[in-house]
Amino acid sequence: MKEHRLKQLVEWLKQEDLSGCFLTSTPNVFYISGFYTDPHERLLGLLAFPNSEPAIVCPNMEVEQVKKTGWNYGIVGYNDTDDPWQKVQEYVKQQGIQMEKLAVEQEHMTVARLHKLEEVFPGVKLAAAEDKMYKLRLVKDEEEVSILREAAKLADFGVEVGVHHLKKGVTEQELVATIEYELKKKGISQMSFSTMALTGLKTAAPHGKPGLDQVKDGDLVLFDLGVVLNGYCSDITRTVAFGNVNEQQQEIYETVLKAQLAAVDICKPGVEIGQIDRKARSIITESGYGEFFTHRIGHGLGIEVHEYPSMNETNTMKLQKGMAFTIEPGIYKPGVGGVRIEDDILVTDNGIELLTSYPKDLQIIKP
Amino acid sequence: MKEHRLKQLVEWLKQEDLSGCFLTSTPNVFYISGFYTDPHERLLGLLAFPNSEPAIVCPNMEVEQVKKTGWNYGIVGYNDTDDPWQKVQEYVKQQGIQMEKLAVEQEHMTVARLHKLEEVFPGVKLAAAEDKMYKLRLVKDEEEVSILREAAKLADFGVEVGVHHLKKGVTEQELVATIEYELKKKGISQMSFSTMALTGLKTAAPHGKPGLDQVKDGDLVLFDLGVVLNGYCSDITRTVAFGNVNEQQQEIYETVLKAQLAAVDICKPGVEIGQIDRKARSIITESGYGEFFTHRIGHGLGIEVHEYPSMNETNTMKLQKGMAFTIEPGIYKPGVGGVRIEDDILVTDNGIELLTSYPKDLQIIKP
Repeated sequence: MKEHRLKQLVEWLKQEDLSGCFLTSTPNVFYISGFYTDPHERLLGLLAFPNSEPAIVCPNMEVEQVKKTGWNYGIVGYNDTDDPWQKVQEYVKQQGIQMEKLAVEQEHMTVARLHKLEEVFPGVKLAAAEDKMYKLRLVKDEEEVSILREAAKLADFGVEVGVHHLKKGVTEQELVATIEYELKKKGISQMSFSTMALTGLKTAAPHGKPGLDQVKDGDLVLFDLGVVLNGYCSDITRTVAFGNVNEQQQEIYETVLKAQLAAVDICKPGVEIGQIDRKARSIITESGYGEFFTHRIGHGLGIEVHEYPSMNETNTMKLQKGMAFTIEPGIYKPGVGGVRIEDDILVTDNGIELLTSYPKDLQIIKP
Repeated sequence: MKEHRLKQLVEWLKQEDLSGCFLTSTPNVFYISGFYTDPHERLLGLLAFPNSEPAIVCPNMEVEQVKKTGWNYGIVGYNDTDDPWQKVQEYVKQQGIQMEKLAVEQEHMTVARLHKLEEVFPGVKLAAAEDKMYKLRLVKDEEEVSILREAAKLADFGVEVGVHHLKKGVTEQELVATIEYELKKKGISQMSFSTMALTGLKTAAPHGKPGLDQVKDGDLVLFDLGVVLNGYCSDITRTVAFGNVNEQQQEIYETVLKAQLAAVDICKPGVEIGQIDRKARSIITESGYGEFFTHRIGHGLGIEVHEYPSMNETNTMKLQKGMAFTIEPGIYKPGVGGVRIEDDILVTDNGIELLTSYPKDLQIIKP
């Protein structure tokens, strides 16, 4: 139970003169309540009001789980044969609430659900809950930081496993399978996203898919992976050389490394996000590879592996203590290969803490 | 490219007097076009019209991928800095279409996207595309059947790996990791859902999560898993005994098996879905375990692991040739253990084909 977060949400409802909010996405329900579940097509929600008891809406079979998180407020449980929206309506009525203006996650709520809402609360006006939730989640507290730290260490370990298993002829899929196997043995049940191990020219595709391609002499090999630990994600990328890589591959590596180190180096409270992107981009552009750095410098990191804020060139938001994000420049040159180097970063009082710590100097693995 | 499916969709638009449809979910875009992608938060869509050229809407970096599928119609590509809705508006204008009534997937389209739609097509009325798509996807064609067959074989193999690795002290997570490792080595890059391996009393929770629990003498061990192959899913469950299971565990197993065999046995074209559920349920109820069979008999299977139709007690739909679904009765008795046995079924001309074929007689693994 995250009492202080619920309090912040309720404060906001009061300020904005909202009748309530209904959060329906797993990350936001988890953030406020500590209850984490994947409801699939079923309705999951957190109802909060300015002056009434909040409630979690969930299938009856999850009610015990909600209680275990320490949630001391209302629980609106339903069976598969019930209409959960009727139950929501009843709860709101019991609380004596006139539902006039309700904040919802407009990027999560579907049109079908909107129709149900309008049915049970005729004439209700909608407001957006996203921005508020993004902002609440932006600055991580001590508990979140310690989980992110641990998750990042497991990402380091994943890369270590991958690099350790490099040998001539091993396939990308075997590398992925081995990494996930070793992490699962440590109790990790979910990766932040599909683990990526790419070799040879496939490294030049930032969204390439691991397949049955084999590692061979002269390849760059790129690992991009992360774990979900207690609801929080990590995300690391490392690229290593297998055998005799050529000069251009090495030049690309050194350029990305230089850009990554420089971008990380300027991070501290007060620095504009756009500046960080531009720092890395200018180094890569000066080296003549600008056109091959085809994505933003990074993304916020937390309950979701890609979360607010977007770390891009035009973002004028300033860093503040407690923000967590990735710094991940890359160069992808078709016909030559690609390199990306990515760390998870936490902003501290007057600088940053690198959450990921796997070495970044070019490693050349002997075949 | 799935020309005949597009044609069926267009026929429907004509019949219903719709200006067009905009499909935005990965499974439906894939079904009509053959193009499979996970767009994350980005917009993916398939526009179709009664009398104009259809188009796929996707990020520019995916355009080449779309072409490779053989899509010979319009492609509306966009960059991250573009507003994709403006591009959709332009395309529709170019085609000279008056957008009056548009079918969308109301269970997939978000409120935020609805607002964008209403912005670019002022006054547009919405219709539901779900039902039509469910019905189109219901009956599998030869190509789909052969993929489902292959996917089911890989699910059989997954269970085989799990059972083969059973030994005293092995953890649930190790079993999961081993199964996925062996499947990934075969080139499978995605499971249909999080692989489940549960042991001991945890088998009594139909939604239990694999952890660091160790297999011990007298345990039931339940495996539930499936793979995604060329866009289609498989889904199998087997339960085996490890060492000296007691009489009640065996009785539960034999009851579930009897119910599963009986339910499978009555499947053929013309049989009501509800009847299949009731057949299994009556056998379990007569044995005194009715209250512990807490879910429906199964679900449709195809591009999604849970798809239309829901195989439940009250469904009056009749089976027809080409339908694919699961039959998976279970008994979950707290403090004793749980058993579920699940096969993938294809309806044929006058009966069914079992797509999964791992043995179902109670296997007792020696510790």
